[in-house]
Amino acid sequence: MQAEDSSRIQWRTAVADPHTGDDVVIRGYSLLDLIDHVDFVSGIYLVLTGELPTEPRRRMLDTMLVSIVDHGISPSSAVARMISASGVPLQASVAGGLLTFGDIHGGAGEEFARFLSETVAEVEAGPTTPEGWTATAERIVTGHRAAKRRIPGYGHPQHPNGDPRAPRLVGTAARLGVAGPHVALALALEAAIERSGSRRIPMNIDGALGSIMLDIGLDWRHARAVCMIARTCGLAAHAVEETVRERGWRGIPFDTVDYDGPAPRPLPGRYVTAAGGAA
Amino acid sequence: MQAEDSSRIQWRTAVADPHTGDDVVIRGYSLLDLIDHVDFVSGIYLVLTGELPTEPRRRMLDTMLVSIVDHGISPSSAVARMISASGVPLQASVAGGLLTFGDIHGGAGEEFARFLSETVAEVEAGPTTPEGWTATAERIVTGHRAAKRRIPGYGHPQHPNGDPRAPRLVGTAARLGVAGPHVALALALEAAIERSGSRRIPMNIDGALGSIMLDIGLDWRHARAVCMIARTCGLAAHAVEETVRERGWRGIPFDTVDYDGPAPRPLPGRYVTAAGGAA
Amino acid sequence: MQAEDSSRIQWRTAVADPHTGDDVVIRGYSLLDLIDHVDFVSGIYLVLTGELPTEPRRRMLDTMLVSIVDHGISPSSAVARMISASGVPLQASVAGGLLTFGDIHGGAGEEFARFLSETVAEVEAGPTTPEGWTATAERIVTGHRAAKRRIPGYGHPQHPNGDPRAPRLVGTAARLGVAGPHVALALALEAAIERSGSRRIPMNIDGALGSIMLDIGLDWRHARAVCMIARTCGLAAHAVEETVRERGWRGIPFDTVDYDGPAPRPLPGRYVTAAGGAA
Amino acid sequence: MQAEDSSRIQWRTAVADPHTGDDVVIRGYSLLDLIDHVDFVSGIYLVLTGELPTEPRRRMLDTMLVSIVDHGISPSSAVARMISASGVPLQASVAGGLLTFGDIHGGAGEEFARFLSETVAEVEAGPTTPEGWTATAERIVTGHRAAKRRIPGYGHPQHPNGDPRAPRLVGTAARLGVAGPHVALALALEAAIERSGSRRIPMNIDGALGSIMLDIGLDWRHARAVCMIARTCGLAAHAVEETVRERGWRGIPFDTVDYDGPAPRPLPGRYVTAAGGAA
Repeated sequence: MQAEDSSRIQWRTAVADPHTGDDVVIRGYSLLDLIDHVDFVSGIYLVLTGELPTEPRRRMLDTMLVSIVDHGISPSSAVARMISASGVPLQASVAGGLLTFGDIHGGAGEEFARFLSETVAEVEAGPTTPEGWTATAERIVTGHRAAKRRIPGYGHPQHPNGDPRAPRLVGTAARLGVAGPHVALALALEAAIERSGSRRIPMNIDGALGSIMLDIGLDWRHARAVCMIARTCGLAAHAVEETVRERGWRGIPFDTVDYDGPAPRPLPGRYVTAAGGAA
Repeated sequence: MQAEDSSRIQWRTAVADPHTGDDVVIRGYSLLDLIDHVDFVSGIYLVLTGELPTEPRRRMLDTMLVSIVDHGISPSSAVARMISASGVPLQASVAGGLLTFGDIHGGAGEEFARFLSETVAEVEAGPTTPEGWTATAERIVTGHRAAKRRIPGYGHPQHPNGDPRAPRLVGTAARLGVAGPHVALALALEAAIERSGSRRIPMNIDGALGSIMLDIGLDWRHARAVCMIARTCGLAAHAVEETVRERGWRGIPFDTVDYDGPAPRPLPGRYVTAAGGAA
Repeated sequence: MQAEDSSRIQWRTAVADPHTGDDVVIRGYSLLDLIDHVDFVSGIYLVLTGELPTEPRRRMLDTMLVSIVDHGISPSSAVARMISASGVPLQASVAGGLLTFGDIHGGAGEEFARFLSETVAEVEAGPTTPEGWTATAERIVTGHRAAKRRIPGYGHPQHPNGDPRAPRLVGTAARLGVAGPHVALALALEAAIERSGSRRIPMNIDGALGSIMLDIGLDWRHARAVCMIARTCGLAAHAVEETVRERGWRGIPFDTVDYDGPAPRPLPGRYVTAAGGAA
Repeated sequence: MQAEDSSRIQWRTAVADPHTGDDVVIRGYSLLDLIDHVDFVSGIYLVLTGELPTEPRRRMLDTMLVSIVDHGISPSSAVARMISASGVPLQASVAGGLLTFGDIHGGAGEEFARFLSETVAEVEAGPTTPEGWTATAERIVTGHRAAKRRIPGYGHPQHPNGDPRAPRLVGTAARLGVAGPHVALALALEAAIERSGSRRIPMNIDGALGSIMLDIGLDWRHARAVCMIARTCGLAAHAVEETVRERGWRGIPFDTVDYDGPAPRPLPGRYVTAAGGAA
């Protein structure tokens, strides 16, 4: 709905309009129609991109979301559980867990997706054959090695032989026919990294998710969003489990802590007055 | 995986185990199998409840999630956008927006679901005919009116004639054959409220979601979780849109603020020393 | 400043007015005057209560804030450090840590302060001698024991002989002459609890802070605020220390986790189609 | 306390040790001693830097904290109030408000402080006369203009003639004798910016706080922390005021919103099956 007095407007949005009589408009569609006819994963795609997905893109997004729905006790779920144990409502636990999706954990995919997105946008002016991606990847790997910078999206501390979810997702992308230039570049980078060094550093889940997301039409800014949508589920399950199974307040075991600050020392003389009162 | 030295254990969980060679176990299932064969909505149900859903329950949960995927500019999205406008990473904006899912906004469903869950658990010892639910509902409405307490799950400030999403969801529950005692009680309460007062106060989205969730096997503690899983999508879309379309820092228009505290006044004499320095 | 078109007003506040030419008004006082003449602790008291404190009240609040400025590795600082380790800006780490100030940790003082505040308000209609407080305390302890409810503010899991900070703060309150009816009742409760059971359960830091706060003129709703103001300092120190000293991403040691969910199991037959594709 | 089995250690800290019998050690000092003899502002300095401050540094930090204790309805307090209005505990409102201390709002001081800190560290190898700072400032301003980059710490959208708090703080720093190389460089930059352009762009509060903090011995990583410690007070006051004075749930006035997404449109044909059910 168009506001009548434009001087009052503080918010502009193309996502949804709840002020449409007895319905809500989501990206132009009736929410009541969506309720009756459209599935949640398509709804996610619609809300993020503005359009409904093709069926192969919908299936790909569905598969990606499944792949990150939970990962057991990790920094994010540990935080959610510690907050939950302190007696707060569920949303605070989940919000706290999501705060860990920083540049290292959930945010690495964003960094990689942005990098892929910008590189592909540059390259696609010319012809892009498999050989073309190989050449581009060689150039990038050489440049990063010279600058001693790490390429995000490859390697996993817990899975030296590779996170098995990554090839599974790339395989699904190929089978569904949605793999495009970003997956091609991501695979070319994996090969170039292996050739450039003494060992294979396989694409990790961030690399797989980041490249496939771009090929199904999401923006690099949505990489972190997709991780958060999926993991909100896992974080909520952990927070509720903590409430139901544990006894509340979760102390830190004292023998897991090493205090290595100054040894006990007296206050400087100026603080200790004859009267003994606070300064 | 069972930890070997039980004195080291700080965390217990039945949700997932990421330490299983080249796979992750989610509620007993291989994550690689889930990636290949199971959809995201079933994954949500599995992570929350511990078991995979029947097809009607899966479709019902899918429809519920669609119904709350976004609601335009609301308190939660306004908060997410204001945080986003201040130059922070996406997860902080989404986390801030989720914090609004308090007892009034997203949490009302939890309160209603808990109330329904406890009432049904009590009642189900005996026979539960439609007349039985009507009698139970009459008793509850009378009790609440006597105590001047509001029954959550009914009425909506923006939709006096009823939030149209509610009957749509209840209708889907009936069509899919998943409506059970909790929906029966919720409908009986709606009727009893109408009979007890001068006007109809229709079930709202919290009432519909809360009762249906219980009938498809979720716990009342998951009511807020389902809202958060769906809305994380909308909050992320708003936070990204704010970044892409707006110019950053979002000030509060000065003429929307009314300061009604003490009028300007001088400091008490004891603070203003001859020397003029801080006390 | 009074807004001119009242229909535009969305915000009302008596805390501060930043729209006053080249100054900001804080509770009626010029911020420039406060900068020149008033200390931070008085500023905290002013912002929370609306008035500047007397000198004894200022010193008491100062001492209370010192007493909770940090507590080493605790749930709140552990959360702040885990979030910090995931590569996020400082404010997200501190915000996450503050989320743990729930009903169990930082919020217990609020519960106790509210309880004291309401009890004293009730009682003060009549005469309140030391014997009066003893009688009131006996009645409360008996009532709580009958209802099997715990009185907040007493006992500490880590300090069975009593948190030493509590008597120190109560002693300071007596010395500064600010102890009033709320401290009197809190001490009477400590004595009544000891008489009613087999052992002494000393007042803890929440009990001391909660009762003294009320006697220096703060509202029970500010109990949690005082804890948060002090601890924001400690949380920031921990978050920065994590960034400077540790190596980033903080994994959960796998042998501290016990997965006790379902053992590995195959997917139900309906998910595994001949074609092997996702359902 | 030194942990006995080093393989169990997960946390290392030099901030505080709560496991010292009936006391807590803060940076080597007894917390009970601090309670009796040391003020809160000195405690903040101690926790952040590891040492107690000199008296002039303490007074300077005190004054800086006062200057930012509240700023009325701003993005941070608006967020805290919107979260508070949705029925959540105080810590969630304050945490949400703090999340806005991003690179634009509270974080600008960090950026400036880091920049000053690195520049001064570089320069101080040689002689640093007033003329030296002028030359350094000229070089920086010229470099930033060439690169079309903005120098943080100067200019304020609401105060074109300069935020009056900034010169007040710089004046206090001079009077207390704590102004050093960082303030000198910050003032030289202000002068160089004025000479390089057509008008004066005065140092803002971030510039004043950032430069003075460094001169009193804080790290640039603490710039955001100092803002947060002070403003936690203001945010708590706003969150409590919202709870006490307003009526709960704070809707977004519909005429302040402009939906400019796609006009209402029917679902694509593939979603609307003959049976009308969800796909």
